[in-house]
Amino acid sequence: MPRVIVDAMGGDLGLEAVVEGVARLTIEDNDIQVVMVGDADEITRALGEQRVDPRKLQVVHAGPAVAMDENPKQALEERPDCSINVAMKLLAQGDCDALVSAGHTGATIVAASHHLERLPGIRRAALAAVYPTEQRHGPKEDPFALILDVGATLNASAEDLVSFAVMGAAYAQIISDNTSPRVALLSNGTEANKGTAAIREAHQTLLSHPDIHFAGNVEGLDIPRGTVDVIVCEGFLGNVVLKMLEGVSEVVTDLAKDAYARKFLWRLGLTMLSQGLRQLRAMTDWKQYGGAPLLGFDKVIIKAHGRSNARAIRNAIKVAAKAVERDLAGRIRDGMSAVE
Amino acid sequence: MPRVIVDAMGGDLGLEAVVEGVARLTIEDNDIQVVMVGDADEITRALGEQRVDPRKLQVVHAGPAVAMDENPKQALEERPDCSINVAMKLLAQGDCDALVSAGHTGATIVAASHHLERLPGIRRAALAAVYPTEQRHGPKEDPFALILDVGATLNASAEDLVSFAVMGAAYAQIISDNTSPRVALLSNGTEANKGTAAIREAHQTLLSHPDIHFAGNVEGLDIPRGTVDVIVCEGFLGNVVLKMLEGVSEVVTDLAKDAYARKFLWRLGLTMLSQGLRQLRAMTDWKQYGGAPLLGFDKVIIKAHGRSNARAIRNAIKVAAKAVERDLAGRIRDGMSAVE
Repeated sequence: MPRVIVDAMGGDLGLEAVVEGVARLTIEDNDIQVVMVGDADEITRALGEQRVDPRKLQVVHAGPAVAMDENPKQALEERPDCSINVAMKLLAQGDCDALVSAGHTGATIVAASHHLERLPGIRRAALAAVYPTEQRHGPKEDPFALILDVGATLNASAEDLVSFAVMGAAYAQIISDNTSPRVALLSNGTEANKGTAAIREAHQTLLSHPDIHFAGNVEGLDIPRGTVDVIVCEGFLGNVVLKMLEGVSEVVTDLAKDAYARKFLWRLGLTMLSQGLRQLRAMTDWKQYGGAPLLGFDKVIIKAHGRSNARAIRNAIKVAAKAVERDLAGRIRDGMSAVE
Repeated sequence: MPRVIVDAMGGDLGLEAVVEGVARLTIEDNDIQVVMVGDADEITRALGEQRVDPRKLQVVHAGPAVAMDENPKQALEERPDCSINVAMKLLAQGDCDALVSAGHTGATIVAASHHLERLPGIRRAALAAVYPTEQRHGPKEDPFALILDVGATLNASAEDLVSFAVMGAAYAQIISDNTSPRVALLSNGTEANKGTAAIREAHQTLLSHPDIHFAGNVEGLDIPRGTVDVIVCEGFLGNVVLKMLEGVSEVVTDLAKDAYARKFLWRLGLTMLSQGLRQLRAMTDWKQYGGAPLLGFDKVIIKAHGRSNARAIRNAIKVAAKAVERDLAGRIRDGMSAVE
């Protein structure tokens, strides 16, 4: 019976979207228990408008979220009652197994670092993102792959990159039922001698890891193609790559809108293609895939996108519960103990 | 009267494409002189099939090109008569002003480093790429922007990034008639304190440069949008970004082909949209923009894409001639002398 803490504050769409997602989950067929952390009055009021199973739900009061323009370290120091801090403390106390938040990413990372233990051998936590690819992945033929770190680690060492590979493989196994996900290092060439010193050293270590299906280096071309299941890079690079994918998706949408507005013939053509475009959009809308895991701690943490709607919140909680049930932390522990 | 050396060997489409592009240029209204370097017999034979103005053309014999799978340093040592080496030596001797090659990128960079002088203050040459953007740029409303370095410089220092900014601004001025191109550093956040130590330090230096319109930091999102005219980053990152753009373009083409094949209604829709799609394709086909300049030397060097056809070769030579006429090297010298 997985117990998942949900930070009710801080999502761009407001507390109502989070409450609706949680309520929907409680009346579905599952054994997930949810603890919602946030303004108790507001949560209660919002719950009143939803169909909900109260036996699966608990509410813990907390103050407002860390705002997007706040410095997370400072905010957490000045307002220890902010929702992510209260939620993370609760998670650390051990009754619960996982946490989902659609709030400030930096604040989630800082709060996790304050309150949780890192797994053995993990020097730095990593934020991983699921993104759409042309090729399909795993036995379920998922149209997405995993890339990490997309947080803000600068100057990742070879050891960091190896631990990212271990964590990414463990997470891909869980979400894609993929027993042996292909893992690669992102570099400026496929040869083993390409890239920074850290990449070259991590390459050698990963070649000898007994449990990782290491596919060597991949290049920028391989990101949208989806040649491998897990792409490993330092956070600075991953951040640029992920935002660029987001930008490309926005530009394509803009261009389609522009074509729609400009000519009757184009409008007609787009209407005929609407089903195909919907499929394309579904493929490029990675927000549906349940959020980004923050990997490296002894508890499961899922960072849902700020713009998550009720369905996205529900998906994120289900992914968190799945990661608990399939023992994400244990898999990472095993993978790290096999690093030479 | 600009004199441009053209490496006739090494393009993926063979010597014929290069010869056709050169021949076409000679019969147009311009005063560009071309020196073709390569297998003299083959060039002469290929020229026989073209309409050409022989007064604008000279041929210098050389051996075969460096092959794509060769190590460029080793190849240049073992075969000093290879076309790029002969062409670069000729360029260094001073009769000619610029060089265009569709051959091995690494070999072009190595040969330039052997034979040419770097401009004052330039520690490392940079390869810049023109890529398509949503927003338009400069008085000609060009649908493309510049990104550099996309070569293979690892660990660019703050000084390197500043020199890339100066060189990128100079080149954008020339190709886009843009007197004050907006230049930005690629980072993981727009704030001045984001990014590596080198990025933060370069940020401060660029703020005080009198002639550079410095727009601060941009993020991955801004690459496809084209928020600025010139994006500066280290070569490793630029390489990943550029290959990723190429990959996205290929994936979109694949998806459109797939939609065309699958349903009659979709095929009809795509046909109605064909004019719009042609515009989109033209926008995403950055190969038409004349190639990538290798910046930092006292001569103009344009690396045309390996798959350049006759039109692309002609465009690359015209761009090279324009950079000579507008004194690219002088502009870079001025920009570097203003760095504090």
